[in-house]
Amino acid sequence: MTESNPDIEISRRRLLGTVGAAGAAGLALGATGGALAHSAFDDSPAGASGSAGSLASLGATQVAFDGEHQAGITTPLQAKGHVLAFDLAPGAGRKEAAALMRRWSDTARLLMAGKPASGADSGIALDAGPSSLTVTFGFGHSFFERTGLTSRRPTALDPLPDFSADRLDAQRSNGDLWVQIGADDGLVAFHALRALQKEAGEAARVRWQMNGFNRSPGATAAPMTARNLMGQIDGTGNPKPAQPDFDKRIFVPAAGPGPAEHAWMGGGSYAVVRRIRMLLDDWDKQSLAQQEQVIGRTKATGAPLTGGTETTKMALDKIGPDGKPVIASNAHARISAPEQNGGAAMLRRPFSFHDGIAADGTPDAGLLFICWQADPLRGFVPVQRKLDRGDALSEFIRHESSGLYAVPPGPRDGEYVGQRLLEG
Amino acid sequence: MTESNPDIEISRRRLLGTVGAAGAAGLALGATGGALAHSAFDDSPAGASGSAGSLASLGATQVAFDGEHQAGITTPLQAKGHVLAFDLAPGAGRKEAAALMRRWSDTARLLMAGKPASGADSGIALDAGPSSLTVTFGFGHSFFERTGLTSRRPTALDPLPDFSADRLDAQRSNGDLWVQIGADDGLVAFHALRALQKEAGEAARVRWQMNGFNRSPGATAAPMTARNLMGQIDGTGNPKPAQPDFDKRIFVPAAGPGPAEHAWMGGGSYAVVRRIRMLLDDWDKQSLAQQEQVIGRTKATGAPLTGGTETTKMALDKIGPDGKPVIASNAHARISAPEQNGGAAMLRRPFSFHDGIAADGTPDAGLLFICWQADPLRGFVPVQRKLDRGDALSEFIRHESSGLYAVPPGPRDGEYVGQRLLEG
Repeated sequence: MTESNPDIEISRRRLLGTVGAAGAAGLALGATGGALAHSAFDDSPAGASGSAGSLASLGATQVAFDGEHQAGITTPLQAKGHVLAFDLAPGAGRKEAAALMRRWSDTARLLMAGKPASGADSGIALDAGPSSLTVTFGFGHSFFERTGLTSRRPTALDPLPDFSADRLDAQRSNGDLWVQIGADDGLVAFHALRALQKEAGEAARVRWQMNGFNRSPGATAAPMTARNLMGQIDGTGNPKPAQPDFDKRIFVPAAGPGPAEHAWMGGGSYAVVRRIRMLLDDWDKQSLAQQEQVIGRTKATGAPLTGGTETTKMALDKIGPDGKPVIASNAHARISAPEQNGGAAMLRRPFSFHDGIAADGTPDAGLLFICWQADPLRGFVPVQRKLDRGDALSEFIRHESSGLYAVPPGPRDGEYVGQRLLEG
Repeated sequence: MTESNPDIEISRRRLLGTVGAAGAAGLALGATGGALAHSAFDDSPAGASGSAGSLASLGATQVAFDGEHQAGITTPLQAKGHVLAFDLAPGAGRKEAAALMRRWSDTARLLMAGKPASGADSGIALDAGPSSLTVTFGFGHSFFERTGLTSRRPTALDPLPDFSADRLDAQRSNGDLWVQIGADDGLVAFHALRALQKEAGEAARVRWQMNGFNRSPGATAAPMTARNLMGQIDGTGNPKPAQPDFDKRIFVPAAGPGPAEHAWMGGGSYAVVRRIRMLLDDWDKQSLAQQEQVIGRTKATGAPLTGGTETTKMALDKIGPDGKPVIASNAHARISAPEQNGGAAMLRRPFSFHDGIAADGTPDAGLLFICWQADPLRGFVPVQRKLDRGDALSEFIRHESSGLYAVPPGPRDGEYVGQRLLEG
């Protein structure tokens, strides 16, 4: 899979000289687009055929749809995101689901290449490049009943256990089909959302939909771990793709010891999606020292309270002058630390959300928590179980919705996502 | 006022060589920040003191708070926005309003320079540069009763006339105080929103709040007129700051023929803010040809249906083979054309909005229409009156809220916004 390039500072010299990954995407822009997109570029004062066209690095960054894994899992965080679930329409089954996944895959493949959707394109993304657009598809537990495929449903999709802090809204949880859209441009992301909703046609209807965002590329002096809306650096403990066991932790083995009827998930991953409301008014009333005690890390740098930098290992046994652990026993960083949970078995890749003001006058804002793992029972579940018991952060957050989805592997050329399940 | 630079492609060579406007802002980053921000930069692997710090052009772009006019009027469109209105709290009057405007101005000045708010900063914008942040303040009609200043209320603030197509929600309209926040980074914008809400303290409470977005810098190959969520190029007819009568149309004269009691508005402007819902499901059912007839322009390029490019003057008298005007008599572009309305007397500077799915299942999306003018009776009102009578677009949109605000001039060094009214 072509990774999008987080470095937006590609100089004109470099782009016109050596054609690297992003450079190739930029130059490819001139050749993309159907009639509508093409004429837009031709008529613009400095179209893609001119040198100015090569300069739009944010817009030009392209992520491949086809590949071993679906895009949007290890792709760098994008500035805008939509996550939504669909339910198959009454009467729709395996055949309609297969046709829908083919339409969706065809559309996603076009849009991620910066081309308009086939048929009547809304034009919302015209002029813009692919802007790191990714579209990711998953299947929920109920999908397998609807399609008569329960015998091929992995046990990893068994419903998550209840957690005592859950305040889940069933209307915004689960769903037959799950779609994640991310892009560095808001109109490109919205365009994809509309195009996919349109392709759903009569086969499926939206169950819930959420909007999110992350930092824009180039907002920080150098690429850094993201902050969330509490102001906390969030994602320090994430496994890195360069680590030798990364694939094993995040992706289902292509040919593994699992039952053969689940072979369609080889190269896939499981996504846990939680709308985690942050009680920001309460959080902001805490002093900096109190916040740092709750988290166990220095707010400004993300370094453990036991010293060092963001990436320094926490000295969990270190005792302070008061005889208590410097990183409190209920500190969020301690409880969620990979080394306290048999290694980091999940990759967190969230969006922040902000839906204005809730009925009670507080901000309806927080984290669209999305984590990826080869097995939720070794990833999300044990960590959340521990957090549920004794995380100091829990009084400042509220889990409002939950979904668990089987995200099939990336399609091989010409395939659609999920074909190995639906036609296997 | 320093304008933000829409060109995100500043090569390392250029930035380290000639120090231009954006370069200066980038270099200034190393000197900004209180204790919290400063330590974050120091501890990062490639802080602002290193060369990597100079490269974050999106983050480094800074807009001046002080100046002849407030920022956020002629500033290029930003990728993220929040607009919100506050009502003064019961019992709060002129004194509390003055203190609030001072606190807000102090905070906005700090944040727009990329510094944390004084006191306990939430940290949400840590690591990021100012990212073109602007904060703009305005006063609604009711503000003058609340502060005992009705004698100094300009007649330009008289309530807008009713339009037949209005479906206005009073709860999301008007308000004593109006705040517009824009930035190219979502966390920087949210940080400013939270900081300003906090500074409101007991003096004022939020009446309504809306979130918006525009294209990200660099998403298109060259800077282009924006598109809206209908896919239409939107803003072609906008007056350009280089035009000789631009200031006269958009800003209240510094010392003009108006009554002396309104001199506090010299250099200010009036903002009309309308939440315009787009009925996108209906719009998307129209063929491309039908959409182009409604608008009077080619969708892909924005060129008039009578030919040329986006900036070609419409041939409004041109008759087609069917004996009818090529640009229909009810085409949106004809009715709203500057030449049909005594010249373009308003500057439109909107954000798109998308708040998920409405109760009826359609997208709750559209345009946060914001337009700027020296006099609403010569800007928004006559155009909207004509559109209200016979715009073919009107069946696809719905005005859901409305506000009109007097936006005072920019502060002189040390002043707060509105000081010439509140202490004059």
